[in-house]
Amino acid sequence: MIRVGVNGYGTIGKRVADAVEAQPDMEVAGVAKTQPNFEAHTAVERGYPVYAAIPERAPLFSEAGIETAGVVDELVADADVMVDATPSGIGAENKSLYASYNTPAIFQGGEDASVAETSFNARSNYDDACGADSVRVVSCNTTGLSRVVAPLEEEYGVEKVRATLVRRGGDPSQNTRGPINDILPNPIEIPSHHGPDVQTIFPDLSIDTMGLKVPATLMHVHALNVTLETDVTAAHVRQLLDDQSRIYVIPEGIGLDGAGKLKDFALDAGRPRGDLWENCLWGESVATEGRDLYLFQAIHQESDVVPENVDAIRAVTESADAAESIRRTNETLGVGLSGDPSGFGADQVEAGTADD
Amino acid sequence: MIRVGVNGYGTIGKRVADAVEAQPDMEVAGVAKTQPNFEAHTAVERGYPVYAAIPERAPLFSEAGIETAGVVDELVADADVMVDATPSGIGAENKSLYASYNTPAIFQGGEDASVAETSFNARSNYDDACGADSVRVVSCNTTGLSRVVAPLEEEYGVEKVRATLVRRGGDPSQNTRGPINDILPNPIEIPSHHGPDVQTIFPDLSIDTMGLKVPATLMHVHALNVTLETDVTAAHVRQLLDDQSRIYVIPEGIGLDGAGKLKDFALDAGRPRGDLWENCLWGESVATEGRDLYLFQAIHQESDVVPENVDAIRAVTESADAAESIRRTNETLGVGLSGDPSGFGADQVEAGTADD
Repeated sequence: MIRVGVNGYGTIGKRVADAVEAQPDMEVAGVAKTQPNFEAHTAVERGYPVYAAIPERAPLFSEAGIETAGVVDELVADADVMVDATPSGIGAENKSLYASYNTPAIFQGGEDASVAETSFNARSNYDDACGADSVRVVSCNTTGLSRVVAPLEEEYGVEKVRATLVRRGGDPSQNTRGPINDILPNPIEIPSHHGPDVQTIFPDLSIDTMGLKVPATLMHVHALNVTLETDVTAAHVRQLLDDQSRIYVIPEGIGLDGAGKLKDFALDAGRPRGDLWENCLWGESVATEGRDLYLFQAIHQESDVVPENVDAIRAVTESADAAESIRRTNETLGVGLSGDPSGFGADQVEAGTADD
Repeated sequence: MIRVGVNGYGTIGKRVADAVEAQPDMEVAGVAKTQPNFEAHTAVERGYPVYAAIPERAPLFSEAGIETAGVVDELVADADVMVDATPSGIGAENKSLYASYNTPAIFQGGEDASVAETSFNARSNYDDACGADSVRVVSCNTTGLSRVVAPLEEEYGVEKVRATLVRRGGDPSQNTRGPINDILPNPIEIPSHHGPDVQTIFPDLSIDTMGLKVPATLMHVHALNVTLETDVTAAHVRQLLDDQSRIYVIPEGIGLDGAGKLKDFALDAGRPRGDLWENCLWGESVATEGRDLYLFQAIHQESDVVPENVDAIRAVTESADAAESIRRTNETLGVGLSGDPSGFGADQVEAGTADD
């Protein structure tokens, strides 16, 4: 049984904790939080031992009626693996803490690649992380791009990737972010940092990315062009992508026309928090012109890295190989949306709530 | 004096009428409207004769206190040129009306290309429209793309254009459109219709386009990749684009980071309706990688075709050549934003209104 500590119990951390708890070969040793907010209360409800991430703030937890199991150092000492899900930049500050207890650590994509021995995407480079002391699970967007690039690279060879990332302005709960009614090139400079981040997974890949931010919170959407090394048909590519366990190729005609309906679909299916762990890729959009491939996909920024974190835990503990870990993670979480769920047609999707 | 009738006095029509009235060689013969709404009252205020676009509805105008000069047939008979600015698809229905009076007609980009003898962008193919009986000014997005393609094609040669169009969901006044909090591939199919539309201006151009809709109303934003036929430097391209009279290359460091601030800029400058007739292209974004050029530009969907309509009027009446018409239109309207307006820095832009 791998005992996993989760430092930071926010958007990513709480999801990773639940995913870990669902694995038969893992358990949550505890979660560390900086403050006793609503998420800390949820952690208590779920039975996760709560540790104070900042020792001086431990009294705030007892004042809020939350019994702490100790401070974060104790969690790090106790855990077999730490998942750092703290805000971008804090992970790097925590690195020495994990090292001082010789606890392997998994960082998130908000950190610089230099934070860890290797960057990680289960489908693309699982083996690089086997036995590593530190691993960085790449960001939601980089994960989404890597999952598509890996099979294309293997099957056809990739000459160049050009991706426009239409990014949500913030997560649904990030109510101080924008824009409200604007379309922002972000960053204005081209290429954006996303391309080099994908190169942490595929060092030799030629990739240029452009990023924008828009007034939406549910998912990112990628407009992707890949110049392949061989001529292909759209049907062949569609089938290849459909065969990937973490890519959901949205079938034509079932009314899933954007992020809103995809989220409804996930909530209807009873998924925890309405999470979409898979790339949601529009089958209709897959088009080829000679060696040029085009497609649209939506990426659920809050959850697509969750199964990747679970796999990274198995990689650093060398407790399963890539195929076995991915299979187990998918099975326990329920990753892998089926094509055309019966009874779920466009008509049903179109009826909104009463406008009151 | 070219007497111009404007059929349809909505978003485009009212702007074209004002632009025509500003030309020393043109006057507004009248505007035709289907209903006596607020825009009809504005037309009266501006002194434009108002015609009933639907004869049976003429009494509604008198009931609303608006004296009509007649019905649209009379306007067509009287005018030297008609500009059809009716909703998409209605222009085609009006075609026989204009033909029956031998009045040359200018249609908008919402119509199929087949509505007119030629599609039109002043910078790209003015001469094709000289003396034509019918001309179609291409849509806002196609205009924006054509203005960039023309100089690139002339200077470097273009091997292929790949454009992602992040489109506003609707105009500011279109309060029944969406999305609200979503990012929609639109159309889901790739390529979108925009590429073929650009080919009505550049028949031999290789171009693939992808369209999305987002919850914003102010402007479209294009993420553009152009594979050129020769190696170039970003600085050379930036200078070339800066030399185009209808492209505003946004200088670095003046805080124009999106559509909202661009609109503020135009309103501060006292432009009518805050219009941005130029492509607003981020100089910082212009990047090259070998023969691959990348850039971001914002397109003001309500107004970028307005100077093009004015030029199309001169083309069909053969009253000026391309260079002379563009010069006159730019001068009378004030097209051509200057680089770094003094006193207009990022600091001033950042202060918002009181949040009340």
